[in-house]
Amino acid sequence: MSKNSSNIMALVPKTSNKRETVCIFGTGDFGRALGHKLIQSGYPVVFGSRSPWPSSLIPKDAEVLSHAEAAQKAAIIIVAIQRQHYDFLASLEETLHGKVLVDISNNLKINQYPESNAKYLAQLVPSARVVKAFNTVSAWSLQSGTLDASRQVFVCGDDTEAKQMVMDIVRALGLTPLDQGSLLAAREIENYPLQLFPMWKLPIFLSLGLTAFFFFYCLVRDIIYPRVYENKDYSFFLAISIPNRICPILALVLLALVYLPGVLAAIIQLYRGTKYSRFPDWLDKWMLCRKQLGLVALAFASLHVIYTLVIPIRYYVRWRIEDRTISQALNNKTSPFDNTNGWLSDSYLALGILGFFLFVLLGITSLPSVSNNVNWREFRFVQSKLGYLTLILCTAHTLVYGGKRFLSPSSYRWYLPSAYILSLIIPCIVLVVKFVLILPCLDKQLTRIRQGWERNPQYSEQSNYIINKSAV
Amino acid sequence: MSKNSSNIMALVPKTSNKRETVCIFGTGDFGRALGHKLIQSGYPVVFGSRSPWPSSLIPKDAEVLSHAEAAQKAAIIIVAIQRQHYDFLASLEETLHGKVLVDISNNLKINQYPESNAKYLAQLVPSARVVKAFNTVSAWSLQSGTLDASRQVFVCGDDTEAKQMVMDIVRALGLTPLDQGSLLAAREIENYPLQLFPMWKLPIFLSLGLTAFFFFYCLVRDIIYPRVYENKDYSFFLAISIPNRICPILALVLLALVYLPGVLAAIIQLYRGTKYSRFPDWLDKWMLCRKQLGLVALAFASLHVIYTLVIPIRYYVRWRIEDRTISQALNNKTSPFDNTNGWLSDSYLALGILGFFLFVLLGITSLPSVSNNVNWREFRFVQSKLGYLTLILCTAHTLVYGGKRFLSPSSYRWYLPSAYILSLIIPCIVLVVKFVLILPCLDKQLTRIRQGWERNPQYSEQSNYIINKSAV
Amino acid sequence: MSKNSSNIMALVPKTSNKRETVCIFGTGDFGRALGHKLIQSGYPVVFGSRSPWPSSLIPKDAEVLSHAEAAQKAAIIIVAIQRQHYDFLASLEETLHGKVLVDISNNLKINQYPESNAKYLAQLVPSARVVKAFNTVSAWSLQSGTLDASRQVFVCGDDTEAKQMVMDIVRALGLTPLDQGSLLAAREIENYPLQLFPMWKLPIFLSLGLTAFFFFYCLVRDIIYPRVYENKDYSFFLAISIPNRICPILALVLLALVYLPGVLAAIIQLYRGTKYSRFPDWLDKWMLCRKQLGLVALAFASLHVIYTLVIPIRYYVRWRIEDRTISQALNNKTSPFDNTNGWLSDSYLALGILGFFLFVLLGITSLPSVSNNVNWREFRFVQSKLGYLTLILCTAHTLVYGGKRFLSPSSYRWYLPSAYILSLIIPCIVLVVKFVLILPCLDKQLTRIRQGWERNPQYSEQSNYIINKSAV
Repeated sequence: MSKNSSNIMALVPKTSNKRETVCIFGTGDFGRALGHKLIQSGYPVVFGSRSPWPSSLIPKDAEVLSHAEAAQKAAIIIVAIQRQHYDFLASLEETLHGKVLVDISNNLKINQYPESNAKYLAQLVPSARVVKAFNTVSAWSLQSGTLDASRQVFVCGDDTEAKQMVMDIVRALGLTPLDQGSLLAAREIENYPLQLFPMWKLPIFLSLGLTAFFFFYCLVRDIIYPRVYENKDYSFFLAISIPNRICPILALVLLALVYLPGVLAAIIQLYRGTKYSRFPDWLDKWMLCRKQLGLVALAFASLHVIYTLVIPIRYYVRWRIEDRTISQALNNKTSPFDNTNGWLSDSYLALGILGFFLFVLLGITSLPSVSNNVNWREFRFVQSKLGYLTLILCTAHTLVYGGKRFLSPSSYRWYLPSAYILSLIIPCIVLVVKFVLILPCLDKQLTRIRQGWERNPQYSEQSNYIINKSAV
Repeated sequence: MSKNSSNIMALVPKTSNKRETVCIFGTGDFGRALGHKLIQSGYPVVFGSRSPWPSSLIPKDAEVLSHAEAAQKAAIIIVAIQRQHYDFLASLEETLHGKVLVDISNNLKINQYPESNAKYLAQLVPSARVVKAFNTVSAWSLQSGTLDASRQVFVCGDDTEAKQMVMDIVRALGLTPLDQGSLLAAREIENYPLQLFPMWKLPIFLSLGLTAFFFFYCLVRDIIYPRVYENKDYSFFLAISIPNRICPILALVLLALVYLPGVLAAIIQLYRGTKYSRFPDWLDKWMLCRKQLGLVALAFASLHVIYTLVIPIRYYVRWRIEDRTISQALNNKTSPFDNTNGWLSDSYLALGILGFFLFVLLGITSLPSVSNNVNWREFRFVQSKLGYLTLILCTAHTLVYGGKRFLSPSSYRWYLPSAYILSLIIPCIVLVVKFVLILPCLDKQLTRIRQGWERNPQYSEQSNYIINKSAV
Repeated sequence: MSKNSSNIMALVPKTSNKRETVCIFGTGDFGRALGHKLIQSGYPVVFGSRSPWPSSLIPKDAEVLSHAEAAQKAAIIIVAIQRQHYDFLASLEETLHGKVLVDISNNLKINQYPESNAKYLAQLVPSARVVKAFNTVSAWSLQSGTLDASRQVFVCGDDTEAKQMVMDIVRALGLTPLDQGSLLAAREIENYPLQLFPMWKLPIFLSLGLTAFFFFYCLVRDIIYPRVYENKDYSFFLAISIPNRICPILALVLLALVYLPGVLAAIIQLYRGTKYSRFPDWLDKWMLCRKQLGLVALAFASLHVIYTLVIPIRYYVRWRIEDRTISQALNNKTSPFDNTNGWLSDSYLALGILGFFLFVLLGITSLPSVSNNVNWREFRFVQSKLGYLTLILCTAHTLVYGGKRFLSPSSYRWYLPSAYILSLIIPCIVLVVKFVLILPCLDKQLTRIRQGWERNPQYSEQSNYIINKSAV
């Protein structure tokens, strides 16, 4: 038995080259679609059903038997039944002894039941080997072959061999199995298809909150103030002018918030003198959603770019330029060209363009298929070096935008500074602290800590085992 | 024999740890490239050739023998010969008995021969086990390792075990095998590399037709009409003005056509009272190319955005603005600011910007690597909820664009309304019907039907087995 | 033993369904992270350590023993130790006999040692079977499960079976193994994570050089010349005007350089009369980085587009337009509309827009996940047909940009023509030569050569075996 068995097969053609029979309990949409696909991939399929006679809906090449008869024919039984009808399986206990039961069920709500459906199945039929799988695949995509949503099938189970058998079937169907460990993972796997962008929640709520704050801030400064003091109606600013004030502010603040946790983590590591201590929970969570924060920031930056580019098409802007030109012509005076203004205007735009360009590059490298094709060093180079350069360019863009008006008292209204000045606070803090951290004396110590050195080795023994993410 | 054989190997190091010998018939580009790659992956390779002496072109580590001698050395024979030279294989019938013959051939035209090449091979050598594979891989990409085009290898065959052996080789070469079922699938697999964007044909021909129609429509209204009645030469409108009229129209119409079939399907399901009846063929085809329709619409929308943003740079626009400003200055009169125009202009632009932004988001989530990383609920949320929001925003954008002129008789030329009014018909129909469908009474019934409920259960027995796509 | 063992298992449930024990030498970050992940996937893990007592840092379910004891418990030993501490392994020679040693080490510099770490390990313990793997995976991504950077694990080794065992483990961890051949490949695999965009070096240095050249060229013509002759300070042109001159030039030149090697290759093949002769090395290298060249060109084109779209927002441009309008109004004269200028301006913009649009399409199809979903014919259609169309449109865009001024002597300054004229040289050469090559007489011969025909068959025997890339 020293040869790989698949090679032996190669030399000894056999009569029985069929795959193992697979049994499917339940003839609903998903059971039939899976049966169809299994037959196509060469598996004999037998359906177990309450009403064991062939129906026009069931694939032609499949047998339909009673549950008990069907179960006897196969080592793997796919349970394509809803959880609330699992009870009868307990009565099949004897037949199901040692069989692999594949739980493919989903719930309607997250954490609907106290235990996962797979765990419940395992409790009902303790002598069977329960594997959770296929719940993230839709019947329609199985049937039509257009697996737009996902080719990944999460698999978990307590029995390694049973899991392996199921993963082989998954692979044979052209899908990609992902082993998620023991049956405890079933809860998470069952919740997965019910989730709606869980990693995006924090960034989106944060940006909604910030948007609301800056919206009212700008509303007061730019619409209510002129209404009260100058009796001017600038309500149409709500459509473009104010969004185009909020978008760049949010883009800058969120981009800075991407790099703030890395800076905080470095400070914590320097203070504690070790990397083997757990970060506070909020910092861990913050770090895990940096990519999403950055992408939301990019979305705001893109909106800012389009809002800015349509400026010359706006009726209001055209009218204002025409009006000023005409009044100058009528007064017979021309304003001379101001070289400083030329520099300020052009360099402000140039900084913004380059910042946005790098920002888009960062966004492209965060596409899964692109990031899969770069190595770790390249990924860090782009996300860290280019990321900081983007932050510097965007901060400079905002500073130069202020230009001569920056912090000038005349731009205060009701003691409120312009909104863009508020947006500079976090980016400037991040950049200053980062600048301090890359001073040789601190950088050297930080590098040593990250390579495993500890100022006070006992400390680590008290803490839990965790590898802190090095601040990218 | 209770242990997994690969684990047994782990504990019992053996002398013979070589892979199975693979035989390749033919020493052309592809045969040699495949031989090269197989040797690199640890397979002993033997070439079968008419002229069995080593050539400088054949990989050094490979043996070259006569066809019959080579075939005896291996269980798997890759036939790297063109179909028209298959005849001689019939004479090797005895040697090839039980062997796995891998047909890798391609044709020059779709459906060139009455039967697929693999089927033809199986008829020539009935005692061999024929598997179709590798035909979508190019010799150059195998050789250079830069598999830019595709890592997927479609495999089909009547013998499951033979297919498995070939799929193992495919996997060992770092490629991804996709089981396509029995040898009947060979025809489709052979046609695959000859196809040129088959799913894109309908959307592209449709948009070409619509483009032609709207081009002539605009030509008549915007160039010929002023020529005839005002004797003005606006022929240069052909370069930007008219394309920028056609692009947004097509973007809107095609986007509406993405959501129309879903609405039609819902109506059909409500009418028939079941989801277990086949949709008309044209509706099925339409549904399958919705993604492509949407992407073509996005392309037109993107063109529209750039065409719009260059407006202020155009000589014609600059000249017109200057001309108007000068004439106003000379006449010593200024037009006052019109607040309604300010609102219309800004909200029209803002709606367009937001609509385009969401449209680009939809496009990004349809990238394969992104859609692979979202679950089914998230995918539907984006493609359905965000999709309808995009349609609403874009329709509103067009309605507000009309603004005060909308349906005003003065804008008719030769009884022809402005082109953008035509473009509103389909989107408005889709939105109105969709609005009716989400009224609670209808929505409830539709949900029940899609969960499997049937108003008239007999109906389904008469129809074929098909899972209708739920209207996303 | 004629049945696939995994199927046998399916029918005969066994008591021992555990996976094989894996031993890990070293308890550093990576060793622990890998141990953690292995335990999660169902592998019993035993650590070999200098100080064999459990630490709070080591996963709970793992045993910690001395190196020798740990090694005896497993067939696979993962050496998670730095190369400089490998020496002691020689003393374990007897225990390690026949075991699979997995070298996962990385170096700090490219080619740091004369031989690869894996080769060094194989020399230290000649009786073990050394496999190189896992060196491209980071401890943190293993631990956190967020494999943003890469799921690919390069594997190489001289023993096929040992390699297979390691690849099985890689697959069980949810990663994708890629067989890179014998242990000789270890050097390349060890260098891989140290590389920083190796394929991008040539395109980036080339574009930096060209940027510097055109920057000084424009500096002289557009800033120094007016300073000297007209005493005007245009220094603020440095921010936008000059970058917006350099970007389109580089985009056009680099795009032409993408298609030049294909044209040169065709000429060489026509001249030699065979495709079986090696191209010069520089041509091979050039060809391999065409995708990167094209993407850098696209980056410059995108910058050009944004720089162009902000033109009307620039203070300088607004001032110039106002100034001209006012002076015309004061002089009481208006310039009439020039139809030719209208045509030139609009068609120049339209060509640029269409060229950029196709360019972006090319960029999108070069995304790995998109190019994986098209077949070879589609990929060539896009990259070759659409690519040449893009080049034609962009060249025409530049020609029309010149318009009436093109080659006019008045635009020379210090005998220097405008920079855009220089940028036209290479694209025009490429397009003219390509046009000659698709003349039927040449095209026919080229097609025959690429199908394997040779004008002088002996020639190929003298040359090495290489498949020249057909000029896409």
